[in-house]
Amino acid sequence: MHAATVVLVDDLVHPDVLAHAHSSARVIHVGKRGGCQSTPQAFIEKLMAQEALSGETVVRLKGGDPLIFGRGGEEKAHLEAHGIEVRVINGVTAGLAAAQDLGAALTHRAHAHGVVMVTGHAYGAGPLPPVDWPQLAQTAHACKLTLVVYMGVQSAANLEQGLLKGLPPDTPVAVVENASHAQQRHALGRLEGLHRLLADEQLGSPAIIIIGDVLRGLQALPSVLPLAANQA
Amino acid sequence: MHAATVVLVDDLVHPDVLAHAHSSARVIHVGKRGGCQSTPQAFIEKLMAQEALSGETVVRLKGGDPLIFGRGGEEKAHLEAHGIEVRVINGVTAGLAAAQDLGAALTHRAHAHGVVMVTGHAYGAGPLPPVDWPQLAQTAHACKLTLVVYMGVQSAANLEQGLLKGLPPDTPVAVVENASHAQQRHALGRLEGLHRLLADEQLGSPAIIIIGDVLRGLQALPSVLPLAANQA
Repeated sequence: MHAATVVLVDDLVHPDVLAHAHSSARVIHVGKRGGCQSTPQAFIEKLMAQEALSGETVVRLKGGDPLIFGRGGEEKAHLEAHGIEVRVINGVTAGLAAAQDLGAALTHRAHAHGVVMVTGHAYGAGPLPPVDWPQLAQTAHACKLTLVVYMGVQSAANLEQGLLKGLPPDTPVAVVENASHAQQRHALGRLEGLHRLLADEQLGSPAIIIIGDVLRGLQALPSVLPLAANQA
Repeated sequence: MHAATVVLVDDLVHPDVLAHAHSSARVIHVGKRGGCQSTPQAFIEKLMAQEALSGETVVRLKGGDPLIFGRGGEEKAHLEAHGIEVRVINGVTAGLAAAQDLGAALTHRAHAHGVVMVTGHAYGAGPLPPVDWPQLAQTAHACKLTLVVYMGVQSAANLEQGLLKGLPPDTPVAVVENASHAQQRHALGRLEGLHRLLADEQLGSPAIIIIGDVLRGLQALPSVLPLAANQA
């Protein structure tokens, strides 16, 4: 980071991180959040390659981990196609940061064999078909997997409706806005009512939605919405 | 870390991390790998609580992220039940470290809407039913999810057999032994042949198994086992 002469920064990066850059480094903000005022991905990739090929030492600074919902694979492939050497450094992905904010583990020998980290933003507009939420919910229920939905605020009503076809309505949910940041806020409830919870608590993007029995242990849970069943 | 007076360390922690402990700190190795010579979980929890209640500042040092396959939830609950204040710090989970070792992203707009991180070590001996591998494979295929299996070396034959009931036999797989460590080794192949790949390359625990189309882009892939189909 200190060796960078050019730093391309996403919106979700905490400003304090930039303190690690050299004072002479050129810092370029290329955030693209939820549609409007965005820097197109192709432009970012082109800019990175241009700067690197002109001799700059480029750092591409992202929130979370670049290898999951970070377009890290695409950016790396673009740069390598131009013969540019790329080194990826892992980070703490937002789903795990959100779990830390809640004080909940995502897996637990009594509750979950694993976790599904999935985007709520896939409408089938890209090359892939959309996520089949009922099928995913059925498998999460049968195989005991916690669901962690990234970028799911806008599609929360659709998510809730689809997931209720495979998971019990009283499955605990948590919404964590601005995971790991000082202004982090969260709310707890049940799957049936997820959409309303977001509206009532005025939670917005960026947010992580966690769904599963691993949340049952949270002491705060009953204070938001009582879990009548499954108190054992 | 520097403030710790007692440090309880797992096997999978890199020794260099201990350099951050104060020289006067008492370091206790409590590793428990794959069965033999293990320190029982209950003993670790009891020891942590005892040390904390006797006034020590205890650091529990684990590899990866304590909130996923790290027993972090259980240990935190045990300590809090004794009135001990707990602070959890995220880490880089082995699945993401393995992806970094491979130079592959776990999600990709053209290949995967998300990722399933799941234990291969769940035989149904605990309170939960075992993982239904055919169902998980079918959902991973339909919903376009990358599979990342932790602790799956011993059950690799069973995994391969089960996953082949829902995923195409030529689905790319990667096995990463000692992810993120200097002695990291990995091999690439296809789902049909996973078990043989482990044997042929003499890969053992600890290892991460990654399964999915996100691996198709790896340049090294054809050199290990040609992918006749799906070169597009």
